[in-house]
Amino acid sequence: MNKFVRNLLTEWRKLNLPLADEAIVVAVSGGADSVSLALALHNLRERKKLNLNFIIAHFNHNLRGIESDKDAEFVKDLAEKLNFKFQISNFKSNLKNQKGNLEQNARNVRYEFLQHLAENELAFAILTAHTKNDQAETLLFNLIRGSGLDGLAGMKQRQKVKGKRQNEFFLIRPLLSWASRADTEKFCYDSEIEFRHDAMNDDLKFSRVRIRKEIIPLLEKINPNVIETLSNTASLLREEAESLQIDEQEVPEILSQDELKKMPKPRQIRVLRAWLLKHRGNLRRLELKHFAAIERLLNSNKSGRIAELPDGQKVLKKDGKLFFEKSTVEKTFLDN
Amino acid sequence: MNKFVRNLLTEWRKLNLPLADEAIVVAVSGGADSVSLALALHNLRERKKLNLNFIIAHFNHNLRGIESDKDAEFVKDLAEKLNFKFQISNFKSNLKNQKGNLEQNARNVRYEFLQHLAENELAFAILTAHTKNDQAETLLFNLIRGSGLDGLAGMKQRQKVKGKRQNEFFLIRPLLSWASRADTEKFCYDSEIEFRHDAMNDDLKFSRVRIRKEIIPLLEKINPNVIETLSNTASLLREEAESLQIDEQEVPEILSQDELKKMPKPRQIRVLRAWLLKHRGNLRRLELKHFAAIERLLNSNKSGRIAELPDGQKVLKKDGKLFFEKSTVEKTFLDN
Repeated sequence: MNKFVRNLLTEWRKLNLPLADEAIVVAVSGGADSVSLALALHNLRERKKLNLNFIIAHFNHNLRGIESDKDAEFVKDLAEKLNFKFQISNFKSNLKNQKGNLEQNARNVRYEFLQHLAENELAFAILTAHTKNDQAETLLFNLIRGSGLDGLAGMKQRQKVKGKRQNEFFLIRPLLSWASRADTEKFCYDSEIEFRHDAMNDDLKFSRVRIRKEIIPLLEKINPNVIETLSNTASLLREEAESLQIDEQEVPEILSQDELKKMPKPRQIRVLRAWLLKHRGNLRRLELKHFAAIERLLNSNKSGRIAELPDGQKVLKKDGKLFFEKSTVEKTFLDN
Repeated sequence: MNKFVRNLLTEWRKLNLPLADEAIVVAVSGGADSVSLALALHNLRERKKLNLNFIIAHFNHNLRGIESDKDAEFVKDLAEKLNFKFQISNFKSNLKNQKGNLEQNARNVRYEFLQHLAENELAFAILTAHTKNDQAETLLFNLIRGSGLDGLAGMKQRQKVKGKRQNEFFLIRPLLSWASRADTEKFCYDSEIEFRHDAMNDDLKFSRVRIRKEIIPLLEKINPNVIETLSNTASLLREEAESLQIDEQEVPEILSQDELKKMPKPRQIRVLRAWLLKHRGNLRRLELKHFAAIERLLNSNKSGRIAELPDGQKVLKKDGKLFFEKSTVEKTFLDN
């Protein structure tokens, strides 16, 4: 068995993934990472190690005209060759004219498609082919743009996702902890299978490309194993961040000023966020200034003060306790 | 008042530093950072804002022959001009032939000199002129070489140091939270005071120089404020790391297997480290394999197993409890 295939099988067992009788969606762009994942899964099915219903999913962003169509054609042919089911989404709306970050918007619609598909197929999981390189690049990307511990913590190998209709399924990254981009390319070459090259991966106007093509090679002059090092650090910080996470279910309805003030600052912020999430259902439109207002409330010794939140919501301090107050104006009225 | 001087005074108050009647050692290399710090302190003394006994300390590493001597001469002249006391150490041993990292070794002997001086002068504090740039570079340096949360957490602005003879004093970095290297250079130019340039700061064989001269300029193409961003992240992670710290005094003599197993992994490691520190006095010679052995002990259900540590020390598991066992052989015997 090729080492790449053996490693995938080892990881499959470690992640406790099903060996038979489930549908699994595999996201394939046509690049070396996702092609090698599909290839290795096919290999494991041929060897009767896995008896699963693999569905190759390709999202055509239509960002690069004829090249996008060629990618889609390539992935379709690959699925046929491997005898996997194939699902494609041809995205019509023009991402280039959308507000915000192009890569982020593309990612959002792609994940929506994958989730929709997973729900339709009653799939156990969606697999993506992220590698250690992606993990390292994500850490650097977030570090450069500015981020606390949670942003520096890496992607998870295994993550539960709540679907819109169906109960839930998993998002799994079975290459993340062991495969590098060089490994996936080598496995494709060894298997004499071509892969597609996305020209956007060379466009230095994208920060990610700059990180991959310019920054990481420089870091490698200091530490030749920097991809390994950064991807380990990301996993380590992921463990730290998860051990610190506070579930909104754990937070009481009413907070005690004294208890909050005694907490280390990072924990205080996490408790406040969980508390606001509990009362508001989300953290949308909350800005730094709102947290600063709550902090002033906390540190003042006068009773009966108020911190204003968006939508007429308030945090009220009374007798050393913090109360959340919903807007008295009907929210549906404001939304119209 | 020049903005730089005003900022230093604001920071001085924020850090709660004494305004009079104390000796303060100021480490001055002759570069823009430390020269601007000395200048600004002089300015505050002239304005009667501070009435302190400043001692300029210069460490001559003798790494660059005649240039090192010129630096020393320059700092001596500066101290005279500012009417500050001056102390110099001319280091004789040849750092270049020492084992280990040259910069790290140089740093160690320099801090030893500064501490010795602080004790002799019964000083309240040693000041060093680290800037936001140093903070950002340190984060990157540790990230590239490999480090967990504690290594990514930045330098402290204020830190208690235990002296060898005297009780204790502080190590203070009064520029760290607000001044950039550009600010210190500008203040020197504005004050028409020259500063020395260390040619080793241009030598790309040093990782730090590579980070400063090659990596950060690339990061600035993605985020022009990356120094600010990284230095804020370092402070944030410092708060996280400190909130997680476990003092060896808090850890019981005997650990419960069940309690340890219930902890999130990062906390488990911190508790074990604190526990070993409590029993051993230090963590020297402990390697990954020793922690791995203790982890195997924790996760096995058999009673009465042992994990071996250096120097014949052992961790013993019995009835769901971990005991630390000192070597039965006299340690003084082993050391001879």
